[in-house]
Amino acid sequence: MALVIQKYGGTSVGNLKKIREVAKRVAERADQGDQLVVVVSAMEGETDRLLEMAYELTDQPEGREIDQLLANGESISISLLTLALHSLGYKAKSLTGRQVGIITDTHHTNARIIRVDADKIRRTLEEGFICVVAGFQGMSPSDDVTTLGRGGSDTTAVALAAATGAEACEIYTDVGGVYMADPSVVPEARRLEAIAYDEMLELASLGAKVLHARSVEFAKRYGVPIFVKSTFGGGQGTMVVEKQPGMEEVTVAGVTSSKDQAKVTILGVPDRPGVAALIFEAVAEHHVVVDMIVQNVSEDGLTDISFTVSRNDAVRTQELMRKLAEEIGARDVSLDTGIVKVSIVGAGMRSAPGVAARMFRTLADEGINIMMISTSEIKISCIIEEQHADPAVRILHKAFEEDAPAIGGEADTS
Amino acid sequence: MALVIQKYGGTSVGNLKKIREVAKRVAERADQGDQLVVVVSAMEGETDRLLEMAYELTDQPEGREIDQLLANGESISISLLTLALHSLGYKAKSLTGRQVGIITDTHHTNARIIRVDADKIRRTLEEGFICVVAGFQGMSPSDDVTTLGRGGSDTTAVALAAATGAEACEIYTDVGGVYMADPSVVPEARRLEAIAYDEMLELASLGAKVLHARSVEFAKRYGVPIFVKSTFGGGQGTMVVEKQPGMEEVTVAGVTSSKDQAKVTILGVPDRPGVAALIFEAVAEHHVVVDMIVQNVSEDGLTDISFTVSRNDAVRTQELMRKLAEEIGARDVSLDTGIVKVSIVGAGMRSAPGVAARMFRTLADEGINIMMISTSEIKISCIIEEQHADPAVRILHKAFEEDAPAIGGEADTS
Repeated sequence: MALVIQKYGGTSVGNLKKIREVAKRVAERADQGDQLVVVVSAMEGETDRLLEMAYELTDQPEGREIDQLLANGESISISLLTLALHSLGYKAKSLTGRQVGIITDTHHTNARIIRVDADKIRRTLEEGFICVVAGFQGMSPSDDVTTLGRGGSDTTAVALAAATGAEACEIYTDVGGVYMADPSVVPEARRLEAIAYDEMLELASLGAKVLHARSVEFAKRYGVPIFVKSTFGGGQGTMVVEKQPGMEEVTVAGVTSSKDQAKVTILGVPDRPGVAALIFEAVAEHHVVVDMIVQNVSEDGLTDISFTVSRNDAVRTQELMRKLAEEIGARDVSLDTGIVKVSIVGAGMRSAPGVAARMFRTLADEGINIMMISTSEIKISCIIEEQHADPAVRILHKAFEEDAPAIGGEADTS
Repeated sequence: MALVIQKYGGTSVGNLKKIREVAKRVAERADQGDQLVVVVSAMEGETDRLLEMAYELTDQPEGREIDQLLANGESISISLLTLALHSLGYKAKSLTGRQVGIITDTHHTNARIIRVDADKIRRTLEEGFICVVAGFQGMSPSDDVTTLGRGGSDTTAVALAAATGAEACEIYTDVGGVYMADPSVVPEARRLEAIAYDEMLELASLGAKVLHARSVEFAKRYGVPIFVKSTFGGGQGTMVVEKQPGMEEVTVAGVTSSKDQAKVTILGVPDRPGVAALIFEAVAEHHVVVDMIVQNVSEDGLTDISFTVSRNDAVRTQELMRKLAEEIGARDVSLDTGIVKVSIVGAGMRSAPGVAARMFRTLADEGINIMMISTSEIKISCIIEEQHADPAVRILHKAFEEDAPAIGGEADTS
């Protein structure tokens, strides 16, 4: 008898009809004799409904209250799915993040799991129940409700898999797998049969929405294999696992883009030692995460320094830099939010020369200008104008797909 | 510095505009220097919305899941009111029934509070926060969410008042007080300045919706004075307190009606010793609560036995009685759900002779037939046809209002 963790997202439980369908899928699996823990998100639209009310009441809602508020979305879903399972004649019990023993730090709206006490879940499974668990939520040591950030239900599922020693963690989505590019942008995108944790982690961090980045981190750390599958269709799905010697190596596993980018440029910075340090110390002090940095070649002792931050931090960072610019005698500060980061990711890049050149050439041939570049061992990212985002993903997918193992056909978005 | 418990019902927090209004009321009180615990219900309609979804999924939802589901209604309200208080610049913190230490028995959907651990609330108040507490909900010793039954937020408020030794428990409603009859049925109903716990308890048990019966029980046991007031208007409200020697005694303090009635009649019961015992043992075994019982005069060794139960239990009780009727050789079982119980309540009845006669005469003069009667020291109830419910309340209010102390004018339903 295997223990399986399944996770269904908000669109999979978007209304009562879909909840009944999910219950049937879960029931079929239970009939096979497996023990089941089913993690669910809030019904589609519910989180937004709650957030809108909060923001109507105050511009800057406190994290603790937002978490207390949003957690209700998932808590509603678990009871409804449990009742649907009861109506099919199955023993099931709903459990909140707290009841299931998910202890997090106190970083509200984006908490990290620090411990999972799996006793309750084990006991409940042993009593013959299907456990229906609220994703996205946990409890801090001070007894406050916390949430794990958007997409956090994936992390709940993987964390429970790790804590219970489950055989597998199955993440059910609309698109039914991980694709070389977002199928809503590139309809003919290839489905990947398997992808390594590191590649998936980069893709998720760089904007691919199929899995929550932290869930992949967790899976890698605890060696939990993730299977991304289709909720209602069939299909093979994608396996996210540790890179194995026998695994076919592709140069580029994925192409993705992220619009959560803003570029701050400080113009006419006196080019003397310690100025860059001053700038990024000031940014770090305000807990703003900087992604890419470019410093122009100095002219007449003056230089321009550009860096990218999350759009949420853009205005605040600009203000911060304006103050600093006065102090250090820089000319001006500009802000550009009309940009996007397009990235290619693949473990095979390490051994395949010329991948970067091919990326730049592909974009250039399409008349797309590259504003900033950053690279790591297994990814290359370029900042381009926002309007070019989707065309760039399409042409890069086309340019590199020949390197991918031909396993998928079309995207099975059924 | 006084500690005050306030409770606002679902209509008072029915939308964001009203939530802002309640926040202002709470803030004004905080400005007076009082420590505040504010208990809130789910937004109007929210509980029904959740219940409807549950019943769409299954005809007989399990109590544990209903409680887990419904508790979200109140949990949403507390965060919203807390955010509204923040936006006015006040320190406030939302607390669920569990976080506030309300421990109940495991009787789902109608749990009783067995213990309140007031440490957290005291600590939070000492830190200078207004505590915004979810009414209606608690936690069982087995860590499951429980609810206290419809109207249970009143009980939460009174229990917290008892546990914290608060100066007063203020219950805010639309109608702004306790009236001799429901103002929506009798617009000219008198508001009572004060009413004794025992009278209020009878009225609440007999269908008056202004306060949850169990909250009055609690208040009586712990000597917590309750002030029923108007949420948005001014007005004097009504004080619910222990009967005091100086308190003016009225013959009839209230007239009320309850539609949650069904009459089961077993026809042609062999009139031999032990038959009635058999019937009511069978009913009790199935946890059906019987209210009134009437046994007709025996004719030819056969009799009819009628009793009333809650409408929820009607069909099940009828089925139960059909089986039993066969066993004991009774002729048939009939069910009448078109009935209503109209009651008058007043501590003064004890010393005022002829109150029952006056009630029966008043109904008879209006051509209303009395089907069953039951009395206690301080109340008289009659079962009549449902269609006569509102006229009966109106004429009884008129007949007895002259006995009430003339303190209110018209109902201040502002």
